[in-house]
Amino acid sequence: MKKVLEYLSKNRSRFIEELCDYVRFPSVSAQRQHRKDMRRCADWLAQHCQRLGLEAQVCPTPGHPVVLARTPRSRAAHHSRPHFVVYGHYDVQPAEPFDLWRTPPFQPLVAGASLYGRGASDNKGQHFAHLKAIEAYLQTGTPLPCDITFLIEGEEEVGSENLPGFLKRHHRRLQAKAFVVSDTGMPDKRHPALTCGLRGIAAVEVKITGPSRDLHSGIYGGSVLNPATALCQILAQLHDGRGRVAIPGFYDEVRPLTPAERKQMARVPFNREQYRKFLGVPELFGEKGYTPNEQRGARPTLEINGLTSGYQGEGSKTIVPASASAKITLRLVPHQDPDRILRLLVRYLRKLCPPAVRMEITTGHSGKPYLFPPDHPLAQAALRALQGAFGRKPVLLREGGSIPIVNEFKSILGADTLLLGLALPDDNPHAPNEKFDLECFTKGMVMSALLWPELAAVSSV
Amino acid sequence: MKKVLEYLSKNRSRFIEELCDYVRFPSVSAQRQHRKDMRRCADWLAQHCQRLGLEAQVCPTPGHPVVLARTPRSRAAHHSRPHFVVYGHYDVQPAEPFDLWRTPPFQPLVAGASLYGRGASDNKGQHFAHLKAIEAYLQTGTPLPCDITFLIEGEEEVGSENLPGFLKRHHRRLQAKAFVVSDTGMPDKRHPALTCGLRGIAAVEVKITGPSRDLHSGIYGGSVLNPATALCQILAQLHDGRGRVAIPGFYDEVRPLTPAERKQMARVPFNREQYRKFLGVPELFGEKGYTPNEQRGARPTLEINGLTSGYQGEGSKTIVPASASAKITLRLVPHQDPDRILRLLVRYLRKLCPPAVRMEITTGHSGKPYLFPPDHPLAQAALRALQGAFGRKPVLLREGGSIPIVNEFKSILGADTLLLGLALPDDNPHAPNEKFDLECFTKGMVMSALLWPELAAVSSV
Repeated sequence: MKKVLEYLSKNRSRFIEELCDYVRFPSVSAQRQHRKDMRRCADWLAQHCQRLGLEAQVCPTPGHPVVLARTPRSRAAHHSRPHFVVYGHYDVQPAEPFDLWRTPPFQPLVAGASLYGRGASDNKGQHFAHLKAIEAYLQTGTPLPCDITFLIEGEEEVGSENLPGFLKRHHRRLQAKAFVVSDTGMPDKRHPALTCGLRGIAAVEVKITGPSRDLHSGIYGGSVLNPATALCQILAQLHDGRGRVAIPGFYDEVRPLTPAERKQMARVPFNREQYRKFLGVPELFGEKGYTPNEQRGARPTLEINGLTSGYQGEGSKTIVPASASAKITLRLVPHQDPDRILRLLVRYLRKLCPPAVRMEITTGHSGKPYLFPPDHPLAQAALRALQGAFGRKPVLLREGGSIPIVNEFKSILGADTLLLGLALPDDNPHAPNEKFDLECFTKGMVMSALLWPELAAVSSV
Repeated sequence: MKKVLEYLSKNRSRFIEELCDYVRFPSVSAQRQHRKDMRRCADWLAQHCQRLGLEAQVCPTPGHPVVLARTPRSRAAHHSRPHFVVYGHYDVQPAEPFDLWRTPPFQPLVAGASLYGRGASDNKGQHFAHLKAIEAYLQTGTPLPCDITFLIEGEEEVGSENLPGFLKRHHRRLQAKAFVVSDTGMPDKRHPALTCGLRGIAAVEVKITGPSRDLHSGIYGGSVLNPATALCQILAQLHDGRGRVAIPGFYDEVRPLTPAERKQMARVPFNREQYRKFLGVPELFGEKGYTPNEQRGARPTLEINGLTSGYQGEGSKTIVPASASAKITLRLVPHQDPDRILRLLVRYLRKLCPPAVRMEITTGHSGKPYLFPPDHPLAQAALRALQGAFGRKPVLLREGGSIPIVNEFKSILGADTLLLGLALPDDNPHAPNEKFDLECFTKGMVMSALLWPELAAVSSV
């Protein structure tokens, strides 16, 4: 292990440069114009894995390809070592709005203790830390106590539509004791974290159409229902006055937080005023009766992600717009079923729609919430690796983000997932000026190096 | 007069070609990138007026220039002929959304009985009809019974900000018995119309800001108020359930329609089902207790013209957007004061804004409503010219559009305005596929030719 850790330390600046190379690809899965960049990024990653000594390939899917890379099989240990899969994604969120970035999103830049660029934290930097730990084992000739496969997909930010099929097709190669995913967060650098709960997600787009074209608001305004007004009146009824989602039946399956759960969540360091300032809001707001960490980690939400209607350019344009639309996503908590919630939402939206306009609803991607017991031996092993790398007692988190695919790992492959996030709260994932903390990168590599012996020790073959 | 009418008839196709040249200029006053096109369009118009025999010049303003063109003074009639001003505007609405145009907006095209292009109807074609009538007088050597000045501005679509100052600076040259404006509509080709009432306008933009940047909806969603949600909740409260504007005090100055007014409005041909189909809405909607023509002509409204928030691109982006904004315009009826209404709206919006977000309000252009008595001798003279040109009894209209500048003609120059609109209900002003009916163009030229003797006859010098 000493050689591994020395190697990680000695090659740190090269690793950062390589991560910059990786972040430079504008691998935006949601946008068609980046289709070729996606392929180039996958090719680069596979070649990089091969150079480290992994058996790597770019596997096509009906959408963006998956990169699979596996540690070479030791002849002696063949069939006698446990197998783990590290999951990550090389696709990134759209970088818009570009004008709010202080540096170009796809020209990564190290400034202070951080690497800036779209995807640096979500998720390129985080799975790259694992890759570098394995490189250290392989390049120093240190025997690995287990087999490891990297499964790095390209559609996480658009719902991982093709991954379940991929898991099914490759289920033999992906049979594993557990999946390891670093795509969550830690409260601060002094609190490494194991995330034992995740929210699910469901997406929907609502479009209200009225007149067949934009109308002159003077000549026609007053005699037709304005689609933007109708949309606002509908969306205004999706929440009640207490910050709760107003869809009938929405909370039916939500279980109350137990005192033990609330105690664990209260252990996570949190300063209300610092958090408010960090977000830049005049005051915090959420469902009454819950702390902000509970609101964003363990309670379901409905968010409008975007609104579009009529004239949005300079000056004014006196029209009744022909249509108005909203992008909406819901975050769901354990025991809520995304399909059922979407049905309830669609039914409620249809009920709210007045007869003087038309409504089109497009349901998008969805993913189930996730909960993993922290007293599981694998979880305990992971907590030891975290403590070893960071020198601090880790906290247990319930996190608000969604990684729907962890449910597929369980249902298709029967494998649990360890969520060992390396992102800090101010990493700006999905926002302008995304960054990855280089101390988290460094300690993440050490954590990964320590993790494999710990996991192997509690895994019977 | 016979020579004049023959000239108009003989040169019709040349006039249409010239109008195409005029429409070809993308003179969009609201968009900075068209600043040079505005100037080029004004230059072209002034040169065109000079070629017809008018004394024309391009007059600078702090914004877009004004074109002034006057009939040459007859020495004999000097100081003994009444003076009238024809007002129009060479600026046009933005052409967006471009993809809904069947032909490019600035490549005018004659198809069937119509000329298609942005500005063809609003307002280039309409004031061009007057210009061609004067050309007919001048080119046939027919003596004009009055002096006529064309005042064609370039900022009507952005609120005519610099026109009042221009009117004050040039008030001597613009002293007139009346202003003639063709920028309104007629119900159909068989019903020429004098518009005796116009709605006023007031514009405002509301921006709600929450977090200092777009936030990951999983990690933070639930602990902050979503600005798009807040905006919708605010905008939803601007109308009540009966289609009335819910701003406290909004209707205080609105006078009930008299039975005589309602009778005149009921004379205007209207087929509810045809109108619904023409607009393309599933059903009509408006303030309860009023007919559609009353709702859009004689009752005040509040319309959302545009909504902007968060991610509007392809696919989804799971964010709590940093901000959300709406463009709003109100149409006001006689006796409502735009400044007071804006104050009431701003106060109401501030009251509705929750403390967990911030609100910025930008008030835009405004204009007072207008009412002109149809029994005035000038109105009666205009009605005779309409009847002569169209061969039909004209209707009296109260129209929903706003031409705020007619109030300035009255207050600054003491002149009343005759609104002799040539636009048809399906001309699509402010919308894709704007067109101008060529029969309206032709009859409009005849109406203008007949108008000047009628107006001169009732005007003592």
